[in-house]
Amino acid sequence: MVTHADIDAANARALELLGAADPVVVDVRTAGEVLPGYRPNLILTSGAPMPWSEYVGGQRDALIGAAQFEGLAASREEAIEGFESGDIEVGSCHDHGAVGSLAGVYSASMPVFVVENRATGAHGYCNFYEGKEPRRLNYGCYDEGVHERLLHVNRVLAPVVGEAIRRTGGVALKPLISRALRMGDEVHSRNAAASMLFSRELLPAFLDQVATDRDGVTETATHLAENDYFFLRLSMAAAKATADSIIGLENSTVVSAMAFSCQGFAIRVAGTGTQWFTGPPPVHEGRLFAGHTEDEITWMGGESPITETIGLGGFAQACALSLQEYQGGSPEVMIERNKEMYGITVGENPDYRIPLFAFRGTPTGIDVRKVLATSVLPVMDVGLAGRDGGQIGAGVIRAPRECFESAASGFEAQYGIAL
Amino acid sequence: MVTHADIDAANARALELLGAADPVVVDVRTAGEVLPGYRPNLILTSGAPMPWSEYVGGQRDALIGAAQFEGLAASREEAIEGFESGDIEVGSCHDHGAVGSLAGVYSASMPVFVVENRATGAHGYCNFYEGKEPRRLNYGCYDEGVHERLLHVNRVLAPVVGEAIRRTGGVALKPLISRALRMGDEVHSRNAAASMLFSRELLPAFLDQVATDRDGVTETATHLAENDYFFLRLSMAAAKATADSIIGLENSTVVSAMAFSCQGFAIRVAGTGTQWFTGPPPVHEGRLFAGHTEDEITWMGGESPITETIGLGGFAQACALSLQEYQGGSPEVMIERNKEMYGITVGENPDYRIPLFAFRGTPTGIDVRKVLATSVLPVMDVGLAGRDGGQIGAGVIRAPRECFESAASGFEAQYGIAL
Repeated sequence: MVTHADIDAANARALELLGAADPVVVDVRTAGEVLPGYRPNLILTSGAPMPWSEYVGGQRDALIGAAQFEGLAASREEAIEGFESGDIEVGSCHDHGAVGSLAGVYSASMPVFVVENRATGAHGYCNFYEGKEPRRLNYGCYDEGVHERLLHVNRVLAPVVGEAIRRTGGVALKPLISRALRMGDEVHSRNAAASMLFSRELLPAFLDQVATDRDGVTETATHLAENDYFFLRLSMAAAKATADSIIGLENSTVVSAMAFSCQGFAIRVAGTGTQWFTGPPPVHEGRLFAGHTEDEITWMGGESPITETIGLGGFAQACALSLQEYQGGSPEVMIERNKEMYGITVGENPDYRIPLFAFRGTPTGIDVRKVLATSVLPVMDVGLAGRDGGQIGAGVIRAPRECFESAASGFEAQYGIAL
Repeated sequence: MVTHADIDAANARALELLGAADPVVVDVRTAGEVLPGYRPNLILTSGAPMPWSEYVGGQRDALIGAAQFEGLAASREEAIEGFESGDIEVGSCHDHGAVGSLAGVYSASMPVFVVENRATGAHGYCNFYEGKEPRRLNYGCYDEGVHERLLHVNRVLAPVVGEAIRRTGGVALKPLISRALRMGDEVHSRNAAASMLFSRELLPAFLDQVATDRDGVTETATHLAENDYFFLRLSMAAAKATADSIIGLENSTVVSAMAFSCQGFAIRVAGTGTQWFTGPPPVHEGRLFAGHTEDEITWMGGESPITETIGLGGFAQACALSLQEYQGGSPEVMIERNKEMYGITVGENPDYRIPLFAFRGTPTGIDVRKVLATSVLPVMDVGLAGRDGGQIGAGVIRAPRECFESAASGFEAQYGIAL
């Protein structure tokens, strides 16, 4: 029978694997080309897999929009019919090596960053940020403007960035993330420094590319300069390539993914493989953009908490105190929340460090046992979506306790030990 | 007779002027072309003006090196003769609108950033960073390598950056500094974010310039990417253009400059104009680079504390906690030191804010009266020079009390009021 000492040893190994990750972005390709098991009629979305009928609100709208964007349906109605008949399929991002921001929809033609974890060979993928406009497909909106901006990503930004990444021979992301943590980012809700650091890596390539594609390079460099959130998708792909290396790690109670859909939150645990343990939607404390009210907040999915899973985002928020302005809270509260996370994690990240805590490593590797024992729930820095679509604010959410209780049952069923 | 209420009113006005400053870098020109009162045989250096005979050690070496670099002398010996005979003149940076980093030498052909304070019309100038190599002219070193790097500045970096600045129509520095404070800089000993933000402003121009000067632009962009200290000289020029707007402000006891030479520290006070009040060298707590020892530390000048004069650097060190690694100290000590500065300043900067202090403005406008009443001495983040030349560490220094006592006497002599 498995003992707590066995679990401790497995969790120490999980921390080691998370810490040793070496995520490098090596290419930009389309989802259809590179995501494992992709099919042309497949639309991916955030959260544990569900049948079409359970997607509601903004997440349903995002799925419909993605099908239209991909040309799988000529109209909203046709898209709905397609999903109902099964001609258009819905899948879960995590099952295809990807993670989705908010509703997190992918269609075949969307370009994705290809991130390789050179320590383990695992891959992580994430599609592109759509830009600052609050109406975005990943926030459940689809209209002409959204369509145009997505096309711009496909036709201009992705080819230029992809070419630059290939010319550069890949860009190691860990050093950039590590530096960004000293520059006011936690690389989930704040990516201003990381986006600049990434652009800087591509600059020599851009200066070469300008000879053959002056407009494309200028537009792309300008887009990068204006969009401080650009790096989030790289940070997510890096986190996915990192976290996936502990999936199936025997005896380990370390969380390997946190994600949610319109129906609720879910976690995966290393020792129980790709199984999801579900619960209600997250609890939140947020700050709304001017003109919006609390009752508008809606859940339409989100897998960016993959960053918290590996010790970034909310687990590094003491690096990014200027987020107080964006998502609410005071420096004191942010620091306290960050410290609390040391109580539910296996250890500290060797490379991701917090200047304010005298360069202590970020709390890394959420242990289901510690969450249950302390009742401290993992915090995540996220964007908030409105019921009519679009981003209406930002805030901090907590993973619900139910997911951890369910994980404990699942773990006990498999290993015969009560957590 | 002047009363303390008059002084309070004048100091409030000083704070207003410091806060309202709008420094914009508009050009790069040579010192000979633009510094007020410049002459071809003039070498400028840091600190209150002194006769040639009083310059010793690294600062003397830097003056000699600058004369050789400029071609005013064919050898070290000839340069010394030139200074002794007066054929080569020594001047004080501050008397020519400039501020010098460390030894702070200027010669006629050196390019300088031209910064205009659009709120007052005042100008501030600063020459270029020589690069990361510890052996630099401003650290008292002059050899073939130093010569080559200075020439590279003159021939490649300055022309390309100057062209980019002119094409861009000038770059407003306050928004960049303001943002950098949220990104881990205090823009004195840490300029990593500010340097990136500045490069980003020039990027569109660089992409245009690449057509006609591919190598120059590539070298310059690479230099900017590799030199996190690049922005310091812009920050110094911006601070000079800001601080100079209070020179001669009647009744004000606010410090308008802090500078030191190999012989000692000196301050200027708004109400007493361009007069310097001198004292011994600063007191320091530093951190030395590996292989160096305390007894090697030497003073060869420094005018970068102009940044502290306007509420940056040591007065914003709680923004830049990662400096603990570079200059020593713990986060707690840095935070405490920063807070202490509120006790000796007139008020808070409206644009330069500290995320860790819930976006409280940085302590701004050092009041001689408060320094004397509290015995709290202004802190500055500086580089430390070694007796054999070159940078050997970094640390925090404090302005000596004697300067403030001397300033109080000078102020009393002029205004008839004891501070």
